[in-house]
Amino acid sequence: MKSDDGVERPGKPPGRGPKVRAAVLSATLSELTQTGYAALTVENIARRAGVHKTTVYRRWSDRENLVADAVTELAGTRVPFPDSDDISADLRSLARSLVRFLASPLGQAVTAVMLSDAGRIPEVASAQRRRFEDRYRQAEPVVARAIARGELPPGTDPAEVVRAVLAPIYLRVLVTSEPISQSTADAAADAALAAARAGALSRP
Amino acid sequence: MKSDDGVERPGKPPGRGPKVRAAVLSATLSELTQTGYAALTVENIARRAGVHKTTVYRRWSDRENLVADAVTELAGTRVPFPDSDDISADLRSLARSLVRFLASPLGQAVTAVMLSDAGRIPEVASAQRRRFEDRYRQAEPVVARAIARGELPPGTDPAEVVRAVLAPIYLRVLVTSEPISQSTADAAADAALAAARAGALSRP
Repeated sequence: MKSDDGVERPGKPPGRGPKVRAAVLSATLSELTQTGYAALTVENIARRAGVHKTTVYRRWSDRENLVADAVTELAGTRVPFPDSDDISADLRSLARSLVRFLASPLGQAVTAVMLSDAGRIPEVASAQRRRFEDRYRQAEPVVARAIARGELPPGTDPAEVVRAVLAPIYLRVLVTSEPISQSTADAAADAALAAARAGALSRP
Repeated sequence: MKSDDGVERPGKPPGRGPKVRAAVLSATLSELTQTGYAALTVENIARRAGVHKTTVYRRWSDRENLVADAVTELAGTRVPFPDSDDISADLRSLARSLVRFLASPLGQAVTAVMLSDAGRIPEVASAQRRRFEDRYRQAEPVVARAIARGELPPGTDPAEVVRAVLAPIYLRVLVTSEPISQSTADAAADAALAAARAGALSRP
């Protein structure tokens, strides 16, 4: 790594830090996707990332930390919030994009992490929370414009709308082990919209 | 144990089987509640149940099997479904009873199990599913009478109503780590009711 004055410091390979980090975290997500959390090993992650195992252990004390970091990075990826000037279509796209993610190998890997001992790592839990807080913030202007267009009643709470749209999908995946599909997504979005229109998702 | 002809068979202490089983499963839930899944040991469970460790191992190969059995038994406990001839009050009671359960030490222990490696034991997952299927069945006559009273539109799907009431509560506990309270429960119930009244929770 270069210091601020551009001089190479001995003992650290120049410019390698961020690249190694990115390669290892990406390899972690790929391994998670292919083998799942239970079978995940630092050896396989290192091989996939093209680095030595000791390079991984120098930065991450164990695979739990590695998974926490990888999931946190993933949660930091900004997913655009649907915004088409039609709140019904936007909520359906929001629900459908969660269904698509949860059905993808990566989504299944992340779900498996949440439902494993790694799910209780504080960083993994707070990554999930931040992902939702981000969605709540992104929903604010979208809901505000829907109110302005008369599609939703004044006072509708954007966070409550996001929760109502996504909760039935997570319930099926995490609690009841029921299948999800595009029609599950549309039904969840339509029910949330009906509740919002009736004023049942307003700020207290 | 006695056989059908009432004759004691050698090698099995008479009548001890079901009692030992009940004592060990109850001790497992108590230990789960007090120490959580990660710190759970067969030694402590045996001590609490007043049996020898080998007695536990004779019936259950490891603590995962023990937890799976204990959670399955718990899920089999029939919780009465609220039925007061007022669907709004019934849905609020349903939501409040889940909030109370999840806030109790036992509920927190069960949640910790779901969010641990034990949550992926097929028996634990199917116990959760059966608990919901039971609720769906119990909701049928309650929703049918609400339709007959004109409180809900014909065609309202009892399973969708149960999912809509409980999903936002589970979302907060399992995904977003947001607090739950009686007002979370009431808001979830009211939103589900509004969606149902608008015909958005009808059978497809």
